[in-house]
Amino acid sequence: MLSTMQDVPLTVTRILHHGMTIHGRSRITTWTGEAEPHRRSFAEAGARATQLANALRDELGVNRSDAVATLMWNNAEHVEAYLAIPSMGAVLHTLNLRLPAEQLVWIVNHAADRVVLVNGSLLPLLAPLLPHLPTVEHIVVAGPGDRSLLDGAAPQVHEYEELIAGRPTTFDWPELDERTAAAMCYTSGTTGDPKGVVYSHRSIYLHSMQVNMAESMGLTEKDTTLVVVPQFHVNAWGLPHATFMTGVNMLMPDRFLQPGPLAEMIERERPTHAAAVPTIWQGLLAEVTAHPRDLSSMASVTIGGSACPPSLMEAYDKLGVRLCHAWGMTETSPLGTMSNPPAGLSAEEEWPYRLTQGRFPAGVEARLAGPGGDFLPWDGESAGELEVRGPWIAGAYYGGASGEPFRPEDKFTADGWLKTGDVGVISPDGFLTLTDRAKDVIKSGGEWISSVELENALMAHPEVAEAAVVAVPDDKWGERPLATVVLREGAKADFETLRAFLAESIAKWQLPERWALVPAVPKTSVGKFDKKVIRKQYADGELDVTHL
Amino acid sequence: MLSTMQDVPLTVTRILHHGMTIHGRSRITTWTGEAEPHRRSFAEAGARATQLANALRDELGVNRSDAVATLMWNNAEHVEAYLAIPSMGAVLHTLNLRLPAEQLVWIVNHAADRVVLVNGSLLPLLAPLLPHLPTVEHIVVAGPGDRSLLDGAAPQVHEYEELIAGRPTTFDWPELDERTAAAMCYTSGTTGDPKGVVYSHRSIYLHSMQVNMAESMGLTEKDTTLVVVPQFHVNAWGLPHATFMTGVNMLMPDRFLQPGPLAEMIERERPTHAAAVPTIWQGLLAEVTAHPRDLSSMASVTIGGSACPPSLMEAYDKLGVRLCHAWGMTETSPLGTMSNPPAGLSAEEEWPYRLTQGRFPAGVEARLAGPGGDFLPWDGESAGELEVRGPWIAGAYYGGASGEPFRPEDKFTADGWLKTGDVGVISPDGFLTLTDRAKDVIKSGGEWISSVELENALMAHPEVAEAAVVAVPDDKWGERPLATVVLREGAKADFETLRAFLAESIAKWQLPERWALVPAVPKTSVGKFDKKVIRKQYADGELDVTHL
Repeated sequence: MLSTMQDVPLTVTRILHHGMTIHGRSRITTWTGEAEPHRRSFAEAGARATQLANALRDELGVNRSDAVATLMWNNAEHVEAYLAIPSMGAVLHTLNLRLPAEQLVWIVNHAADRVVLVNGSLLPLLAPLLPHLPTVEHIVVAGPGDRSLLDGAAPQVHEYEELIAGRPTTFDWPELDERTAAAMCYTSGTTGDPKGVVYSHRSIYLHSMQVNMAESMGLTEKDTTLVVVPQFHVNAWGLPHATFMTGVNMLMPDRFLQPGPLAEMIERERPTHAAAVPTIWQGLLAEVTAHPRDLSSMASVTIGGSACPPSLMEAYDKLGVRLCHAWGMTETSPLGTMSNPPAGLSAEEEWPYRLTQGRFPAGVEARLAGPGGDFLPWDGESAGELEVRGPWIAGAYYGGASGEPFRPEDKFTADGWLKTGDVGVISPDGFLTLTDRAKDVIKSGGEWISSVELENALMAHPEVAEAAVVAVPDDKWGERPLATVVLREGAKADFETLRAFLAESIAKWQLPERWALVPAVPKTSVGKFDKKVIRKQYADGELDVTHL
Repeated sequence: MLSTMQDVPLTVTRILHHGMTIHGRSRITTWTGEAEPHRRSFAEAGARATQLANALRDELGVNRSDAVATLMWNNAEHVEAYLAIPSMGAVLHTLNLRLPAEQLVWIVNHAADRVVLVNGSLLPLLAPLLPHLPTVEHIVVAGPGDRSLLDGAAPQVHEYEELIAGRPTTFDWPELDERTAAAMCYTSGTTGDPKGVVYSHRSIYLHSMQVNMAESMGLTEKDTTLVVVPQFHVNAWGLPHATFMTGVNMLMPDRFLQPGPLAEMIERERPTHAAAVPTIWQGLLAEVTAHPRDLSSMASVTIGGSACPPSLMEAYDKLGVRLCHAWGMTETSPLGTMSNPPAGLSAEEEWPYRLTQGRFPAGVEARLAGPGGDFLPWDGESAGELEVRGPWIAGAYYGGASGEPFRPEDKFTADGWLKTGDVGVISPDGFLTLTDRAKDVIKSGGEWISSVELENALMAHPEVAEAAVVAVPDDKWGERPLATVVLREGAKADFETLRAFLAESIAKWQLPERWALVPAVPKTSVGKFDKKVIRKQYADGELDVTHL
């Protein structure tokens, strides 16, 4: 028996058309640093995205399957690029503006980007790279910034507004197979060359539906989401496409990512939701502690990228803002889990669930691979490497000279699952608790010590601003933890005090012997603790280590 | 450039596995008419569904693509069938127990059902049909009822509980292509033979996601939905699969669909949501008016199948229950629209939006075909026949002797869209207002008169219990409206009074000249006004018609 259903592809084009018509009134508000933010309706943004597609095709010669890069902040024009480029059959390539120059050059060349859309404020970053980017034929500049930086550049330079002005607001969109490439991100891997993840129309569409499901972010047209997570960071966790699908209003900070402007835009624009990594919320908390602001419009905040210190969640609970853990990675689009506790629990009973990474939706199958390669039970105790499978999860990387998909053995299993590199446990009811990155686990005398658990325990101390724990070589145990600590201004705690504090919640054999005060924890381009740097500092003798 | 995403199919198997593990604690509660309802966890239901699949394959010889029918009320066993049959690669065929015997016989023979799962309480319906059902090899009986009715039946008879008992709770589920047939319903068409709609795994999966999106029903594990809409009526509007996907608890009324038991189960079990056609809510309102009950746990109620009289919405608003229109049909899985008003409106401003059928989600593309075949603007005024397209919308029927898909011209356009047969207007912001069935529109002197508008206006009169308006032949105008009215007990209104009441809101040229009192409006098997019967009664001179 054959199904009689229509065979209609799941495409970004559908999201574009739907958002600009049915949700034409919804708005993208972009912070400008001036008295009034810039506001643009979905109807306008959709029309402009259509004009952009016309310009890219007719003026810049962009063909289907060509890579078009963006080097932009979160703003309305970047959303337009998110919609136009995939819909015309080209591939949106978001460039991470926090990467070192040589990595950016490598990535643009590897993707063979023909066009770069860039914010004027980022020209100081892009201009020096251009001599090394032979595939780039066109630069399209949007927003304020010094254009003279591009004088003498090899690619043709266009003004975004001039380029799209007067072009048709209709486009004969191609009927795309839903498995067509739509967008790509490179992982900011800590070892080896960056690896490209190429999202399909299908994966973006399904991920957008999941983001909007009530069990996930559950937003509707009645909501406004403050998208702090950069659009170059795994498609801003899928929010621009997901919000355009259901008319959720977007509040975009552009380059104003400092705690002061963020606090101001929340108080003035009253978003109901926000998404960002923990360090943003740390900074914002310090800001509103010093200069109180009303953040209470944000009923829920999705927090991901790294584990959120429980103390931070508690602090925001007091402000009427509920931080909700999510877990994901570039390879998972990124929604992998969200930590909405089960039904019928008191606030106290909910607490341990809120500290987990959360539950998998139906679209994400999960299993834990033990040290021996066997699969471990979901008993909340057996720790293994998380492997996942699903329609918005990578099964390969874009790579090599030929651009053919490749599947390194340390990232994909023989049966096609993604090895996440995250180590954790899963409870019988499917809540994931990550204890570490596989590479950051401290392997001490045949047992595993979780660096994250030590860090969270340390950061719960009132005088600790930040703490990072890494594995360092140890003659007797193989590896032992090294604790690096950033104290708050005026703090008086010494290492003995901190160690005694740790001993209240951590098994004695796991307590670090090695301690170092640091002015700041080194971070990766997306704000995660950069443990590779700390281990190198230790190896190079650059840290002033105290042995207890 | 090729996408690097995994190619993972969207299947009911995935919903089954996910629901029984991650949401294993969620519950299906089935009303029994006894002191306590029957409760079964998703973990148990999933294990039993797996046992059922084993039994169907190993004991009854069900192969992939075989049709397995259900003639059952809404209950836990029927949910198990919903999960087991598609997951094993067979096709779930839900039989509408309200159809006339000859239609049921036609449908079972057309689908070539090899097995019928039946509730014991429905054996009086099934037993007499068996001699006419040559393809049926096995009958599986669940729940109370007189088995002796099957004495001497040709098919083998099995007890559901005995059949599944002791079977394995694992199954080597096939890796299905997502376009595989998963389930089928026949439309209870008013003309010609019934037509089969065959849902795919893909269509069911995507529809389940949409049902769970915050903009649609938006349910989570914290909810309990009272599924009054029968499981034989377009898969209970997708709820059994959607709820299993996200752990929403189900409250199933089984055969206890009378207003008294429904009121009791709402008061005792406190569902947060419910789904049913308007006539159910009419009956329940009369019940709780006579015997007050607390229905306020139901924050939202999805109402569909036919337009809800505004007076009914207002009455439920006063009970703290918000009725929310949805529109769909067997061919649309059925979610086509839901009427959640836009953001930022007062209750008064929301009201006109609540009276519409609602907005389309991104998965449902819509257009209005005018009388001349041209497409009409979304201006809230131009009325045309609604045509829809999307991944959970039928593009053909299962039919003919060969079972090949066929596409009658009056149901599908040349470019593959479904002609819904519904006439309406769409507002610029995408809200659909249906004014009529294409066949029920009254074509009077070159203009269209909406029978639904007249009915709603009539039913707003306090002395009118029900009213149906149909087109009848008229020498001068071609067609004119005939109003048939059911008065409330003790009502004193005469036709002049009702006509004057109508004239307050309806244009004079649209007012009916022909009026008839009737004891009840004839209904179809799924509770809709059966206008075909009324037109025939008029043609046969069976109505006592007054001309004003």
